[in-house]
Amino acid sequence: MAKADKDWKAEAKELRAKLKKLRGKLAAEPAKAEEGKKVKAPNPVSPLAPKGGFPALPVIAGVEFAAVEAGVRYANRKDVMLVRLAPGTAIAGAFTRSSTRAACVLDCQAKLKEKVPAEAGAAIVVNSGNANAFTGALGQEAVDRVTGGVAEALGVPASRVFSSSTGVIGEPLPCDRITARIGDLQGALDAGGIEMAARAIMTTDTFPKGASAEIDGEGGKIRIAGIAKGSGMIAPDMATMLVYLFTDAKIAAPALQKILSRTVDETFNAITVDSDTSTSDALILAATGQSAAAAITDLRSPTAKAFEAALKDVMLDLAQQVIRDGEGATKFVEIRVTGAKDAADAHRVAMAIANSPLVKTAIAGQDPNWGRIVAAVGKSGAEADRDRLSIRFGEFLVAEKGWRSPNYSEADGAAYMKQEDLVIAVDLGLGKGKRTVWTCDLTHRYIDINADYRS
Amino acid sequence: MAKADKDWKAEAKELRAKLKKLRGKLAAEPAKAEEGKKVKAPNPVSPLAPKGGFPALPVIAGVEFAAVEAGVRYANRKDVMLVRLAPGTAIAGAFTRSSTRAACVLDCQAKLKEKVPAEAGAAIVVNSGNANAFTGALGQEAVDRVTGGVAEALGVPASRVFSSSTGVIGEPLPCDRITARIGDLQGALDAGGIEMAARAIMTTDTFPKGASAEIDGEGGKIRIAGIAKGSGMIAPDMATMLVYLFTDAKIAAPALQKILSRTVDETFNAITVDSDTSTSDALILAATGQSAAAAITDLRSPTAKAFEAALKDVMLDLAQQVIRDGEGATKFVEIRVTGAKDAADAHRVAMAIANSPLVKTAIAGQDPNWGRIVAAVGKSGAEADRDRLSIRFGEFLVAEKGWRSPNYSEADGAAYMKQEDLVIAVDLGLGKGKRTVWTCDLTHRYIDINADYRS
Repeated sequence: MAKADKDWKAEAKELRAKLKKLRGKLAAEPAKAEEGKKVKAPNPVSPLAPKGGFPALPVIAGVEFAAVEAGVRYANRKDVMLVRLAPGTAIAGAFTRSSTRAACVLDCQAKLKEKVPAEAGAAIVVNSGNANAFTGALGQEAVDRVTGGVAEALGVPASRVFSSSTGVIGEPLPCDRITARIGDLQGALDAGGIEMAARAIMTTDTFPKGASAEIDGEGGKIRIAGIAKGSGMIAPDMATMLVYLFTDAKIAAPALQKILSRTVDETFNAITVDSDTSTSDALILAATGQSAAAAITDLRSPTAKAFEAALKDVMLDLAQQVIRDGEGATKFVEIRVTGAKDAADAHRVAMAIANSPLVKTAIAGQDPNWGRIVAAVGKSGAEADRDRLSIRFGEFLVAEKGWRSPNYSEADGAAYMKQEDLVIAVDLGLGKGKRTVWTCDLTHRYIDINADYRS
Repeated sequence: MAKADKDWKAEAKELRAKLKKLRGKLAAEPAKAEEGKKVKAPNPVSPLAPKGGFPALPVIAGVEFAAVEAGVRYANRKDVMLVRLAPGTAIAGAFTRSSTRAACVLDCQAKLKEKVPAEAGAAIVVNSGNANAFTGALGQEAVDRVTGGVAEALGVPASRVFSSSTGVIGEPLPCDRITARIGDLQGALDAGGIEMAARAIMTTDTFPKGASAEIDGEGGKIRIAGIAKGSGMIAPDMATMLVYLFTDAKIAAPALQKILSRTVDETFNAITVDSDTSTSDALILAATGQSAAAAITDLRSPTAKAFEAALKDVMLDLAQQVIRDGEGATKFVEIRVTGAKDAADAHRVAMAIANSPLVKTAIAGQDPNWGRIVAAVGKSGAEADRDRLSIRFGEFLVAEKGWRSPNYSEADGAAYMKQEDLVIAVDLGLGKGKRTVWTCDLTHRYIDINADYRS
């Protein structure tokens, strides 16, 4: 049996490689233009994309997905997705704190405050290609029409239909194109459609993002599956990008929200591509309660703790996939800060390093330029003492006690920087505050992508 | 006479053009390597460089300059400059607030606190190629040796010798190479040597930076002349880069410091290239008191006000030259924020726009992508109301009342973005807070320069 397993594994590996090659070819082929609509040639898949393509995600009882081509902005791709959530589903959310946030974000926040009973059922409708942000009064009208249309079709209250829009800012959302397809979306609903949904919400993403976990509850399994999109304009504040998480756990909305809120800081709020925060970031977590396991009521119970840990794993996995798809990224970089006065200071230092264009270009150039890390620590505003600071590249101690470590050799540093995944560790030597964040390098490709986004 | 003036002007213009061409040729020619030393091929002059080359600066009585090739890091270029200041010179300064600031910065700050009487005379010694930052105890030793050597040679107290170092971080300063040339520096001192000094302090700068002003004091002229260097790692906090300002005004150090401190925020603290703050930023203002004009004692007097305005003009001119030499810059961008709750909020919004990689790459791509400006306002943390916000590109009203202005055409925006100098104006519609900052675009050239700085 063990041998058979091994053969299987080898075959799967081979197939995956073939698939990847094929997908790469496909991505390289220019898409055909439909009349009157723009066609965006897909970007080549990020070199940091997880090997093996989209993961197999468990079906979450009570959740169905559909996606269609509505032509919101681009042709020849699915750009609207619908999720139907069974009656009894509890909903929690986290959103951007941008003061110019989009109409759909404001709408989601208002609806979550209404606390409509879970028995009513719920739905999520998302389009890519247009962010419906900074579109004045028309913005809210578009949200009302889309969520109203879905509510009517599915027979759920409009206050339980949550929407997101992602794409260009400042252009009116052509919501007729979306409402015209609601019937088709409803007809296509499928419990196994999560990958299709993950693809429909992509913008500059080069691969769809999914992750899952499973734990043993009391009396049955509890499953979690999530999808996310995000590639640029990534510097979350409170939540980030578009993220949809589904679980069959039995748990009431207030407890679900509590767990979500305390998990966001060390996952989606701990990543940055370019320090730019989106107007549309939204995360929705839906718990259908259809697992056979007993309800989670006490947040200190072993099941609650296991659930929270599993949820955090899924969130961190998705957050890291967003970085692995960072616009133009060729390096995946973990910044570990320890020894800070407190966690807030550690976060400040980690983000100052992660967002420094000089650090990010040095990494792109495979230059172990630790002086730029010292400068980033210095500008962070956090308490720091030059003579207590130490810096490591992976296992190599680079600098300590205010100067280059006597055992550090530039050749070691240069060899280390050639790796695809890097760990930069900074210890401030002051206290117990710590925080790890993830980022990518800043390359020519980032500029190629962003100096011409709208054309 | 008017005609003759005109002919003169035309000839000067022609000569300047020839000079520029010649300089360009020179810069394009690869420098020859000396044995054992690195030679850096000069970058082509920034397309945004002021036309006409280095300006004619007035001689400031009591100030002499010298520069030599000491081979600190690069060969075939002057890399150390010395300024001798006559007895009676009052000194003021402004420095980086980085918590990892360099030994020379800490040394300048300590010396200014000592308040040694101006009668002692003073000196400034600066090297490029090595920042002497994060070099542990060796760093202060190097500062002591260099400033001590200059003090001995010129016969001034060491506590009146101010030093700066700029270049690579984390490598020990080869101070012997500097001290060995102090005699030569002393021998070369020349009241007319300010351009040579401006060239000696350059690092990634593509042109030397100078500016001047002259006002009528009571009983005589007061002159101001300044030089600066800076191109990358520009996001000042308190002061920025290396800036040396000289005046023959008669004014005591405390009054001089007061004027300087209140002028820095709207000049050197209002520019950013890449949001990275240097460990070595320093500004020194020296007033020799050798003007025939009466002393400035009352800061509310007309002369004091005229002096402060002239000083601010010179500082702003130099600060803008730094942006015009921003690494890889092809656009000079003024960001004007008005209508903020207060000045601090206006500064926050202006800097969020100026530092946004997405705004900066859109400008590089000549894309009038105002949605990214909305997003930058949103992430700034300043109070903002989406529906009161208005945005202008130059004279074009782009967005107002939470949406694109009905009179705005994308063609107008696209045409405007083709200009070299751009003005982006944002009114928040909330209060009277305002701030203008200056920045440049983010281009491939920035990445070329910084992904390989140390090689």
